[in-house]
Amino acid sequence: MELGMIGLGRMGLNMATRLIRRGHSVAGTAKGAASLAMLKEAGGKPAASVADLVSFLAPPRLVWLMVPSGPTVDEVLSNLAPVLARGDLVVDGGNSNYHDSIRRGTELGAKRLGFLDAGTSGGIWGLENGYCLMVGGDEADFRRAEPVLRDLAPEGGYLHTGPVGSGHFAKMIHNGIEYGMLEAYGEGFEILERSPFGYDLALISRLWNRGSVVRSWLLELAETAFEKDPRLASIRGYVEDSGEGRWTVEEAIGLGVPAPVLTLSLLARFVSRQDESFSAKVVAALRNEFGGHAVKKTG
Amino acid sequence: MELGMIGLGRMGLNMATRLIRRGHSVAGTAKGAASLAMLKEAGGKPAASVADLVSFLAPPRLVWLMVPSGPTVDEVLSNLAPVLARGDLVVDGGNSNYHDSIRRGTELGAKRLGFLDAGTSGGIWGLENGYCLMVGGDEADFRRAEPVLRDLAPEGGYLHTGPVGSGHFAKMIHNGIEYGMLEAYGEGFEILERSPFGYDLALISRLWNRGSVVRSWLLELAETAFEKDPRLASIRGYVEDSGEGRWTVEEAIGLGVPAPVLTLSLLARFVSRQDESFSAKVVAALRNEFGGHAVKKTG
Repeated sequence: MELGMIGLGRMGLNMATRLIRRGHSVAGTAKGAASLAMLKEAGGKPAASVADLVSFLAPPRLVWLMVPSGPTVDEVLSNLAPVLARGDLVVDGGNSNYHDSIRRGTELGAKRLGFLDAGTSGGIWGLENGYCLMVGGDEADFRRAEPVLRDLAPEGGYLHTGPVGSGHFAKMIHNGIEYGMLEAYGEGFEILERSPFGYDLALISRLWNRGSVVRSWLLELAETAFEKDPRLASIRGYVEDSGEGRWTVEEAIGLGVPAPVLTLSLLARFVSRQDESFSAKVVAALRNEFGGHAVKKTG
Repeated sequence: MELGMIGLGRMGLNMATRLIRRGHSVAGTAKGAASLAMLKEAGGKPAASVADLVSFLAPPRLVWLMVPSGPTVDEVLSNLAPVLARGDLVVDGGNSNYHDSIRRGTELGAKRLGFLDAGTSGGIWGLENGYCLMVGGDEADFRRAEPVLRDLAPEGGYLHTGPVGSGHFAKMIHNGIEYGMLEAYGEGFEILERSPFGYDLALISRLWNRGSVVRSWLLELAETAFEKDPRLASIRGYVEDSGEGRWTVEEAIGLGVPAPVLTLSLLARFVSRQDESFSAKVVAALRNEFGGHAVKKTG
């Protein structure tokens, strides 16, 4: 079918490419000229603006947003909604906060525009392996988008999760779990790395992926990472976070669900970004004050 | 090849069965008459005692222990070692503490007996899927046991990890990571379960196994569990721990490696086993003392 893709970054461009390869007609727009050129190269139709994009599509339209979550989504929608027509359908495939998605669904609904929040997992491997899609919205809107969802996903890899908001909620929890799994692997490999046995971590990852209880796709990526760089000498132990981990913790707090591991996985990322911890300075200072314990001086 | 299996519980009997199916000749002994009958049924040779078992095998012998870790292993070895001959090889496939394995390797070595510590993962699915084996010991001993290791494991699923101790150390960390992954999934699913969206957790697990970043074998087991019992109504939230999680935390402490997620995953199991927390009683009492906050009375 025909669709418009807004946002042609790592995710959007690969998704457009996957859809074009499966016979869909994709127009796309993005801020960078390079992205537009790559879309053209992939067989898509570059549009200079959101309004242009919409003019390329015949109603009822399907427009997929793949832009950074937060204000950018609202900015795009404020340009997009006025040029759409009743019955058009907007899909937000980014990592939006589910509260925002519920609000946007209501706002677009008031203009008789359909809205789906499609949590999208798969990263840079999605082009090849397919994207796992958690889709919230009305049943009828979901059915309309289904030809696109089916071709973006691997076999069985898309689901109507419930009303608007349920897709991004599920994606938020997916990412929260991902934080926990990554941290669990990270801590385990650090103990192995510090052990006296001099393990080959690529071989251990490879082994564990063959019949062990902890085998997973993330552990397959660990194989690749350790094969390239056995002690990860080229990579700093510095980890960003991009929203979903924080929201997962906020949601756990809101619901009163004890989620210590998901919470500490987030906090471990904060620790990874500190050159030095002020709390550690405080602890060192107080140990010195009460017990005369030696402190390391700065400078 | 010919081997003796000591311990015919869930793991030992399945491993013996897998080896028999692949053409090995397996004699086995265990405490229960039922286990011995099942071994016979599977085509193995039941032995009434460790001494009997050894008498069934031609030297140089290979004897595999699959008994509960701890004193049972030492007890078995104290019966086994005197009836073995120089050059025989003992494999401990259980979840022994690696410090014990190093000690046992030295003790057996003094008697000119070989020893391998073979961390074994795969659970009840190992019979079908194969066991992932992390094997510590001398290269020559590893090579001697290799025909058995190769047939126990799936393709590529066994590894010589280093000297005696390195196998059980790797298995310990494997299980520590398993604790963290299980807890991360557990917390994520609890938030989903408590959310207003009424998710079908079997469908969500199934979906996430198709192209998402958190796909794993454990998540495939979650699909099965939620299909059988959508809200796990039949299962108490009570979780045992069996050693490796604690040792992982002790090892992290010994090495000075911060492992908050692996540690809290263990502590979450302790919490799961409490009907009520004394520390929560203390907190409630003190909040009442300093702020007059209401307490719930017992009885």
